[in-house]
Amino acid sequence: MADDAPREIEALIDLMARLPGLGPRSARRAVLTLLKKRGQLMAPLAQAMANVALTARDCVVCGNIGTSDRCAICTDDRRATGEICVVENVADLWAMERAGAFKGRYHVLGGTLSALDGIGPDELRIPALTRRIADEGITEVILALNATVDGQTTAHYIADSLSGSGTSITSLAQGVPIGGELDYLDDGTIGAALRARKRF
Amino acid sequence: MADDAPREIEALIDLMARLPGLGPRSARRAVLTLLKKRGQLMAPLAQAMANVALTARDCVVCGNIGTSDRCAICTDDRRATGEICVVENVADLWAMERAGAFKGRYHVLGGTLSALDGIGPDELRIPALTRRIADEGITEVILALNATVDGQTTAHYIADSLSGSGTSITSLAQGVPIGGELDYLDDGTIGAALRARKRF
Repeated sequence: MADDAPREIEALIDLMARLPGLGPRSARRAVLTLLKKRGQLMAPLAQAMANVALTARDCVVCGNIGTSDRCAICTDDRRATGEICVVENVADLWAMERAGAFKGRYHVLGGTLSALDGIGPDELRIPALTRRIADEGITEVILALNATVDGQTTAHYIADSLSGSGTSITSLAQGVPIGGELDYLDDGTIGAALRARKRF
Repeated sequence: MADDAPREIEALIDLMARLPGLGPRSARRAVLTLLKKRGQLMAPLAQAMANVALTARDCVVCGNIGTSDRCAICTDDRRATGEICVVENVADLWAMERAGAFKGRYHVLGGTLSALDGIGPDELRIPALTRRIADEGITEVILALNATVDGQTTAHYIADSLSGSGTSITSLAQGVPIGGELDYLDDGTIGAALRARKRF
């Protein structure tokens, strides 16, 4: 990248360009906006970012991100339902929370199994999940992994390894999404929805 | 926006979402990346941003952004050529600098004239331009405004108001861009290129 702006500003553009969804050009545009709004936006954003960088930490229990060793969900007594929802990452946990449909606690794996990338069960907080099931009296493990090959491989691995634990293991239903039109759905989804059809 | 993440993180997402090119969803994704790379990316980015927010200031001479009252271009003796290149904003100045074709100094208007938005000459640093032309012994003013209606209206206004100053007033040539294919060019550009045709 040509450096035409002052060095400090170029350094900021380079860092911004490393964010997903921003390239060198859009990072420059974002920084120009920040420069125009130094007081209203740039200073508060820098402050908020420094604050989060300083306070954010991974929950030692479930792997969620919070501001203390145990996250807000793990310390919320109203959520102890004996159910654990297993998700791939924090983004998926937030998506589940947005839906507001699950009232138990979570377990964030931190990714999916991948022989290619050398990611085995020990890299994924799967041993921690096994321990929690024994320690917390969990009666149901809901596998909310993505409906991708990697996600489903990981789900099968976890289901296998927990088969002797006496815990009920379920997974999210697959089918036509709400508002979905058959004409726009992929064949796999239509097939899954047909196989899982229920009485009307 | 639903608040599923801790409050500090939601505040950060909300601020990030105010950047151009980022919506609520991509801001969340960017923050998740930052959270994953707290040490390598988030802390340095917060630091760089705080640094720029603190040090950046508008050049009192030309309106460029720098780290002192007079920007690096205005204080560079090698660039005093008696030419001033007038641009709409700092992004355009950076684009000119990337091209590396201009060796004089700049004047950043800070926008274009707009009766609709109540932006007149006094809002645009045009009086400052008039003063500079008298004070700095400027012999040529190059109007490098965007080839938009607003840009060209502003260019005409500046050319009119400087007509008595004895300074040569030029503007960027319009024509086929380098690498441009006629088939993909708009009619206006082809017309301008034809009118400005030159002997081969």
